[in-house]
This record gives sequence, C-alpha cells and structure tokens, in this order.
Amino acid sequence: MITSPDNDKLKTIRKLQQKSWRAKLGLFSAEGEDLVGAAEAAGRRPEFVLRAGEDVEPELLDAVSTLGSGTRVIGVYGQCWAEPAGDLLVYLHGVEDPGNVGTIVRSAHALGDATVVLGPGCADPYSPKAVRASMGSVIAKPPARASLDALDGHKLALDANAEHRLGEVEVRRPLVLVMGSERGALPAGAAAREIERARIPVHADSLNVAMAATVALYEVALRMAADA
Amino acid sequence: MITSPDNDKLKTIRKLQQKSWRAKLGLFSAEGEDLVGAAEAAGRRPEFVLRAGEDVEPELLDAVSTLGSGTRVIGVYGQCWAEPAGDLLVYLHGVEDPGNVGTIVRSAHALGDATVVLGPGCADPYSPKAVRASMGSVIAKPPARASLDALDGHKLALDANAEHRLGEVEVRRPLVLVMGSERGALPAGAAAREIERARIPVHADSLNVAMAATVALYEVALRMAADA
Repeated sequence: MITSPDNDKLKTIRKLQQKSWRAKLGLFSAEGEDLVGAAEAAGRRPEFVLRAGEDVEPELLDAVSTLGSGTRVIGVYGQCWAEPAGDLLVYLHGVEDPGNVGTIVRSAHALGDATVVLGPGCADPYSPKAVRASMGSVIAKPPARASLDALDGHKLALDANAEHRLGEVEVRRPLVLVMGSERGALPAGAAAREIERARIPVHADSLNVAMAATVALYEVALRMAADA
Repeated sequence: MITSPDNDKLKTIRKLQQKSWRAKLGLFSAEGEDLVGAAEAAGRRPEFVLRAGEDVEPELLDAVSTLGSGTRVIGVYGQCWAEPAGDLLVYLHGVEDPGNVGTIVRSAHALGDATVVLGPGCADPYSPKAVRASMGSVIAKPPARASLDALDGHKLALDANAEHRLGEVEVRRPLVLVMGSERGALPAGAAAREIERARIPVHADSLNVAMAATVALYEVALRMAADA
C-alpha cells in the first residue's frame, strides 16, 4: 500500500497531466472504472494500475486525479499511434479543444470504425479530458498523426458556405473527412486545392466541430455501407 | 459602478447558480460575450446586464461567475417556456446531465428548428452549464415542459436493440423523437406502448444521448424536408 505522496507511480500520474511529460514518457493516464475497464476490454496491458484502498491511500489517489475526490482507480498505459490507413479517415485541422477531439474519436469509432488523423494545431488526444470524452475509444481505436498532404483519397470538407449538401456529393473510397478548427478554418496549401466541400443543411446557428463530425460520419458511413 | 459584493444584482446572479432560486425568480444568467450577444440578436430584453469595468468592479463580477476570472459580462433574463407544438419535437426522459440537455437544445435548433420538451428527471436547461452548452439556442428556441402522454404525434425512440434502422422507418408528422436517459431508460406507462423504436447503425461502443439526438435530428429533418 502506497502511503507517501513521493511515491514514483503517483509522481508519474501527476506528470502525465502535462502534455510535455506525456510526449516524453509516451504514456497517458485513464481515470475511473469506465476507462480502466475499456482498456481491459481492449486487451491493453497497463504500465500499472492503482486502486484506492488496495494499492494506495484514497486521499493520495484523489490528489493526483484530475477528477478530484472519490477517484477509485487510475491506470497508466503506453500511447499508441495508428497508421493513417483504411477506407474512412477523419482528418482534424486545428481542433484545439480536447473535449472535441475526444468526442470525434468516439464518434469515428462508433459510427464508422474510422481512424482520426491529427493534423497541426490539434489538442493532444491523450490528455485526461480527451481520453474521458472519447469514453475509451482512444484506446480501442488509436488516433494517427499526419499532414493532409500525406493522405491519399477523396478529401471532403464540411463548409457551411458550400453549394452542395453532404447528401448530394458522391463518396469515393478511401474517403478523408476534413474537419476544420472551431473557428472554421480549413488547411491551406497544395492539399487544400483537392478538397471537395459540402454542407450540413441547418436551420439556424452553427454546429460545433464535434457535432458536425458526428453527423458527417453517420451520413458517409451509411452510404459507404450501402455501396459495399 | 458597483463596488460592494452586497449589491442586489450581484446577489441575484449568485442565487441563480441554484436551481431552486432560478425556479423561484423565473430568471437565469448568461455569462460571457457570446451568450449575451445571442440574447441581443434574439431580441431578448435583459433584466439587467453587468459589464466588468463599466458597471461593476471586475473582481466582483468574477466572484459571482461560474466561469471564474476574466468574465467580461453577465446578463440576467426571464426564463421562457414554449408550448410543445410543431412538426418536430424532441422529448427528453431523465437526461440528467446539463451539458447534454444544452447540446440537444442546440442541435434541435440548428438541424430541425425543433422544440425540446423536458419530461421528468431532466437537468434544468437554464443552469449556467446548460445555457453555455446550448450556445444561446435556449434563448432563440426556448424549451417546453410536458409529460409524454400529453404529446400527440408519431413517437419514435432510439433504441440500440431495435430491429429497424432509423433510415428504414417511416416518418410521420408531427414527429416526437423520444430520447431516453444516459443509461438508456425510456418512459414507461400508457404512452410507452405507442412508441416505435429504431436504431442508429454503429460499429462499436455506444453514442451518448447528445450525439444520438444530433444524428437522429439530422436524419429526420432531412427526410421531413424532402417530404414537404
């Protein structure tokens, strides 16, 4: 039983709240029964798991958790990065909010079994907030990192000002759904010229990037399944 | 310029963090430029608006804000409740998370111009967290309160175990999309027997209630527009 806050495992968990330490150690933490259970279900072997009252004094676990008091378990795992391959990819450009990145990883997994590819300026999918928003999908369906230029396939971006609706454009494999930043910016450069654009029909307001990605994944996954 | 924390307007804003006070006063607060701007754009007259450095000492505004330091403006408005009427309604049953309630109000507004009807056990859509998640849609498209039995129309619930897919079921007006709790529970009782069920095709995991509602709103709003 760990009884000192100077314990090395507790120090590691505290460090993993910082992106620079996550990158240096190649690790991330999963807080709570749901996420540790998701990692187990996916067959991922932890570096270590600490359970309150079994492995560590509950107050000491609470002190290193981003969830605060009452945290029952924290697991530490190696980061996995996938190759940007498959019939359906979701490319994120400048999506800075970790909750949005995590939600999109979850939607991509659930609706399309699709890999999310992180371009420049995106939040770290292995931050505690992103891991929680992904509900463990970041473990079951690890993200990839690449620039848009490195991806082959039919590039389709959501753009509120596009002429055609999402349901009207042809969908070709492999398909790369391109999602811009929260402020709507899409990538510039060579790859940008090959991007087809389509819009989600809306009555009012604009959807945030995670909701738009969820709708687009539903639409294209259905149509790709119908064509298969 | 307000310079005392005992000012009545500041006290009101602090009270509005509690559901019981919101119900008693019939008011809610909108924090930040985006939400106060959305209320202005919707033509809603505030009870009062306090701007940091103009109407109130910045530290005093920070102290009553749920956003913490750096809050520039807080507006206080009367709560509006709509009638549960129209061709498309979204009925929520036991959706307890204010972020999910706010997100669904936003999706319903954006994708279907639809009114969200709150049944028993739902989070207050006028809590600061729900108002923020709605991005002001709670102001532009106020929610309604009713039991499911009080609603007429074709009732369609999302259910992961349903035989038919959402895209396969007929959609009749007026349509009531029935969304269960985060734990998937749907209403019981007389109205429950008339509910048709359909599922969103998924590869893995399950979508949360806000994401499922967003997808369903996209699908049914498109088909109702095509039928119009």
